[in-house]
Amino acid sequence: MGLIGGSIGLAVRERLGADVTGWDPSPGVLDAACAHGALDRGADSIAAAVAEAEVVFVAAPVGQLPATLAEVLRAAPHDCVVTDVGSTKRSVVAAIDDPRFVGGHPLAGAETAGVEHARGDLFQDAVWYLTPTEATTGTGFERLHRALRGLGARPTTIDAATHDTMLAAVSHLPHVVANVLVAQAARALEEESEQLPATGPSFRDATRVAGANSAIWTDIYLANRDALIERIDDATRRLAEFRALLEAADADGVTAWNDGARADRQRLLEAQLAGGPLHELRASVPNEPGVIARLALELGRAGVNITDMALYPAPNQAEGVVALWIAGDEPAERALALVEQLGFPVAEA
Amino acid sequence: MGLIGGSIGLAVRERLGADVTGWDPSPGVLDAACAHGALDRGADSIAAAVAEAEVVFVAAPVGQLPATLAEVLRAAPHDCVVTDVGSTKRSVVAAIDDPRFVGGHPLAGAETAGVEHARGDLFQDAVWYLTPTEATTGTGFERLHRALRGLGARPTTIDAATHDTMLAAVSHLPHVVANVLVAQAARALEEESEQLPATGPSFRDATRVAGANSAIWTDIYLANRDALIERIDDATRRLAEFRALLEAADADGVTAWNDGARADRQRLLEAQLAGGPLHELRASVPNEPGVIARLALELGRAGVNITDMALYPAPNQAEGVVALWIAGDEPAERALALVEQLGFPVAEA
Repeated sequence: MGLIGGSIGLAVRERLGADVTGWDPSPGVLDAACAHGALDRGADSIAAAVAEAEVVFVAAPVGQLPATLAEVLRAAPHDCVVTDVGSTKRSVVAAIDDPRFVGGHPLAGAETAGVEHARGDLFQDAVWYLTPTEATTGTGFERLHRALRGLGARPTTIDAATHDTMLAAVSHLPHVVANVLVAQAARALEEESEQLPATGPSFRDATRVAGANSAIWTDIYLANRDALIERIDDATRRLAEFRALLEAADADGVTAWNDGARADRQRLLEAQLAGGPLHELRASVPNEPGVIARLALELGRAGVNITDMALYPAPNQAEGVVALWIAGDEPAERALALVEQLGFPVAEA
Repeated sequence: MGLIGGSIGLAVRERLGADVTGWDPSPGVLDAACAHGALDRGADSIAAAVAEAEVVFVAAPVGQLPATLAEVLRAAPHDCVVTDVGSTKRSVVAAIDDPRFVGGHPLAGAETAGVEHARGDLFQDAVWYLTPTEATTGTGFERLHRALRGLGARPTTIDAATHDTMLAAVSHLPHVVANVLVAQAARALEEESEQLPATGPSFRDATRVAGANSAIWTDIYLANRDALIERIDDATRRLAEFRALLEAADADGVTAWNDGARADRQRLLEAQLAGGPLHELRASVPNEPGVIARLALELGRAGVNITDMALYPAPNQAEGVVALWIAGDEPAERALALVEQLGFPVAEA
């Protein structure tokens, strides 16, 4: 029941009007969470906390997740959906083989810690990654997706390994690099026995996150070390490439390298352009395990973001309709084509 | 007569009310500069342009500076002060051995190019580095210092080699690193066949300057390649250090590394805190070549910034008084002690 757990409790109570029971290894923290309004009640044990849950959020440190999740899943109802909020997904998804579990990671609140900083609006407009596998139960996944939308978040389905690589590339490595930049600047300045008269906006931008809260970031770096080491190796290779161009005084090479970065930045910016008109697609899907998850994963892989989702089981229970809301004409077209390719009849509503 | 040369012309005419003659290898550019108001007149040659100058600013590309400066110095009056605006200083200062020359570098305007973008307020509050040597004539240096203050700039005296190292550390390397970050992110995302659903503020901050204008930056990187290669090597070492901590899963090591960066960032920020009460120191100095420059360099080396300076030659011409305005109680104390150590009688006015 820290910042994230506490904020989830507050948000669920405020925005979903649902009943929330919580547990924390520390009775003091559990009491504080209740006092803060994050919980309707505290329970004496994990089993007691989850016995009647429809949705369970597990906010333990990444290293403890496999054990804690296993305990939760032992006691949770058979139709419950269980998720975590850890900043890396590969290891936890590999450790848990249960159709009720969906890995999750909200992009929110890495600056402070503790339930006293918890806020019900913490997840408003926040991307919330979900990493279902082909084993994941569709109804549970849909319930979780819907709940997150209710908290104001933007659930985004992605493959666990891709998640970790991407976070390493766009968050963890930039933090590491910010630290490297301030350290080399501080040492260079000391050696030259000069104070730094002025740093420009490029230095301030590049080092804004240097020395971020170790209590949080040490765990993040270590939890994601495989993907982060890969990114560090890539960055080191590129620095060596550029160094060689400099040493050879290769002006054309330097210009090409620079222009390549401009093109890359442009592509990244374009990839983030959100919005566009909302299209509702309806697909007929068999009522088989993993179908919904597979659909969501394939769409995610193709870069189509599912803004919203609803399931409508048919009376015969053998099949059902899944409604998907997709923002943007082009993504919606791609989604239509993709769902057809997967073999499901689909049409725009 | 590009962005910098044009802005200097405009600023000098607007703020100093001085007469400005200019020259450019292209007659079209020279005409545009006059039309833009940056010059009172264009001249037919370098020699004609500088024949009666008190101050000469040479805004040629760094590679052409030695030849252009030599031509300027051949034709300029004996009591003229001549300066450049190149973004690196080591090479040009090594190439020119003339007491009338002071290396200079204004921190302004690396985003656009061309006299059509010139502005008279471009240098307002901008740090303007000056790299006098022990050979530099004091009266010329003081005249230049005073002129730059008149343009609204903050002249800052520094050693040429330190200048290049510092710029590499706080400007050039961050630009290189921004390019590396976008390139590795773009490639990682392509490989995973996913679009980037969201990049956080840390990525945007870290990559804001990626793909900056090659027309300007290729020259800057190449002109400063020695210092920049040193900084790249330092950064590469530090990345390898951190990689090893990750590989060993050394939590304490990672935390120490992270906390070290926080301390470095704090020190850098503190070093930039400007302001404090202004103290006027008056020192008696012999009227010998290089004395003023040496004073300014020693103070700069000790991290004391000279806010303003004035020279008062004594009637006997053998000595004079230099008045120095220093901001901040502590820097002023340090300056007092230092000037005394250098053997000059000094007191606060």
